[in-house]
Amino acid sequence: MAGRRYLFTPGPTPVPPQVLAALAEPVIHHRGADFRPVYERCLARLREVCRTDSDVLLFTGSGTAAMESVGVNLCAEGTRAIVVSAGNFGQRWEQIAAVHGAEVEAMRYEWGESPRPDDLAARLAELGGADVVFLTHSETSTGVVADLQPLAAAAKEAGALVAVDAVSSLGAVPLETDAWGLDALVSGSQKALMTPPGLALCAVSPQALAARKPGRSFYLDWERTQKAQAKLDAAFTPATSLIVALDVALGLLLDEGLEAVFERHVRLGRACRAGAKAMGLELFSPDDDRSAVVTAIRSPDGVESGAVVSALRERFGMTIADGQGPLKGKVFRIGHIGWFDVFDITTVLAAVELVLAEFGADIERGTAVTAALEAFEHAAVA
Amino acid sequence: MAGRRYLFTPGPTPVPPQVLAALAEPVIHHRGADFRPVYERCLARLREVCRTDSDVLLFTGSGTAAMESVGVNLCAEGTRAIVVSAGNFGQRWEQIAAVHGAEVEAMRYEWGESPRPDDLAARLAELGGADVVFLTHSETSTGVVADLQPLAAAAKEAGALVAVDAVSSLGAVPLETDAWGLDALVSGSQKALMTPPGLALCAVSPQALAARKPGRSFYLDWERTQKAQAKLDAAFTPATSLIVALDVALGLLLDEGLEAVFERHVRLGRACRAGAKAMGLELFSPDDDRSAVVTAIRSPDGVESGAVVSALRERFGMTIADGQGPLKGKVFRIGHIGWFDVFDITTVLAAVELVLAEFGADIERGTAVTAALEAFEHAAVA
Repeated sequence: MAGRRYLFTPGPTPVPPQVLAALAEPVIHHRGADFRPVYERCLARLREVCRTDSDVLLFTGSGTAAMESVGVNLCAEGTRAIVVSAGNFGQRWEQIAAVHGAEVEAMRYEWGESPRPDDLAARLAELGGADVVFLTHSETSTGVVADLQPLAAAAKEAGALVAVDAVSSLGAVPLETDAWGLDALVSGSQKALMTPPGLALCAVSPQALAARKPGRSFYLDWERTQKAQAKLDAAFTPATSLIVALDVALGLLLDEGLEAVFERHVRLGRACRAGAKAMGLELFSPDDDRSAVVTAIRSPDGVESGAVVSALRERFGMTIADGQGPLKGKVFRIGHIGWFDVFDITTVLAAVELVLAEFGADIERGTAVTAALEAFEHAAVA
Repeated sequence: MAGRRYLFTPGPTPVPPQVLAALAEPVIHHRGADFRPVYERCLARLREVCRTDSDVLLFTGSGTAAMESVGVNLCAEGTRAIVVSAGNFGQRWEQIAAVHGAEVEAMRYEWGESPRPDDLAARLAELGGADVVFLTHSETSTGVVADLQPLAAAAKEAGALVAVDAVSSLGAVPLETDAWGLDALVSGSQKALMTPPGLALCAVSPQALAARKPGRSFYLDWERTQKAQAKLDAAFTPATSLIVALDVALGLLLDEGLEAVFERHVRLGRACRAGAKAMGLELFSPDDDRSAVVTAIRSPDGVESGAVVSALRERFGMTIADGQGPLKGKVFRIGHIGWFDVFDITTVLAAVELVLAEFGADIERGTAVTAALEAFEHAAVA
């Protein structure tokens, strides 16, 4: 159908029409009386979504800008950093910490593995601690959602600050910034927060602020942004239209209720995995309720995953994601983060099934949609 | 009128309805077939607007992010920087260069003065040159548009790289990146480019790229962004909706024609100054055709400029800007950058006149609108 598009990637994600409509409102001035109440409410809603009483600093930028804010504010020459990585975005932490002078101890797992808290505790003991431990909550490149709470606990236990990439997890899976002792939690507007890309956030604990290395960045300096936000000002002209839209999206998220949203994502993950398995495909991401945001599926024998991605795009205007790095050509990834319902899952599975069949893959036809619907029906929590 | 709003600040500026409508289009993936042609055209249009054959690097961020990209890519410990400043944004260059380790020689003029090329040449001669000279094209805090070409020439003559803040000038007043030898030209989406805030750009010359200090930033590293753009990719998830909108806005700008746009801004400046003078107000910004983007006006005796700003906002939903820094309370600023017509000028002048009269200021009534229309009518170039 000409012009019809389906966005099933792990981000950017589809944006609800109410949020798109808010984007199209006339521009208002960021220091004016119309903007301040929206800004104040948006910042409060971000704290609610992050489950923190600390400041959530809002930057105009990609999610990586907020990641770099952590690097530039917490790392300097001699900072001892441990980076736990099992995919593309974990490796990004390594690069950022290194750029800002940290001595980086890379704890690398194979892509697709789930990091183990015991390994981190052991490494911290061997090294006599660390200043900062960098973690990835949802590794978008593999579909693995790490068991964050015990990982963070291991780091806290050893006296380290905990920095977390929650770009594709915040607002989709359980995440407790304060209760889990997370010191710098990074996310972006374009995943579960159901807003176009362009806003990045960093929730910073008092401990993280106290450990801040001053004067290493102008744009990404935490203190400059924090001081401005305390006066409901912005240090620099912010992306006002995106903030107005984000406020609407956060309202939708909180109206549904965070626990209901988390449950929906668990059920979306179950539906996607059940459908893929029903047609005989092998999962790459764990067959586990925690993997609720991205399902990575091995492309069947003889079918290059990039060809599946291209066929879906060309035939149906449908976008899913190929594997990244070593997984390119081998897995394809279906995102179900944010504004997703089970019928998005049945749609993408039906299309994948058709395309794979046409490529001659040995798959079972006509079962995926039903399996997905069945799996979605049951409450996630007994 | 309830809900009616007028945005007459020096940025963000009003956004045309076509551009707002583009913002509300469904989100598309930044690596998909729908986005690439838009991205390619947008980058080409930016080169056309900047009048450069070099790369225009596009960052998701405020204009200050692009300014910081210059600091982080061109400055390091020992870099000899001269910053020419005569207002708030010139001083920002000082701060950014210093954060990144440069030895900063600050050539400060009083706020509102126009920097003199001879002064720069003399200072360069005294100092035996510099690595980078930082200039501000349009000093938004005072309304002064510097005579950029001879300033840049003085810097080039002494072998320095030339970095220019063109945030509020690009697309409003004549600016020749290549012909004037500008090495790093910074701007943002939210001024004459008629798009909401959130995108920042930096046009970089081959000389600037060759002088780049590698590995000092991850997000703002010029090479990472340049390499991605060369493949029509983005180094990080970009603000796709804003890019789609910017592309539409740049199309409007280029359809009107840059020379016609420059002429319109000259005439808008004339109209604003003529109207202000007709009611007996004293200009703070120069009474000069180059001051075509912001008109700064001294608040009359006994009237605090912030009260004028507040009254316009509260009574008419109209936003203008107070003075910044030492000018706070003393001048008010009317922006006429981007999507402005003479009837925006007559509207703001009519409202200013009414408000000042009510404050008891000694002004002439009933002349400003006519004077503005008269001044606008005549072609700017004989």
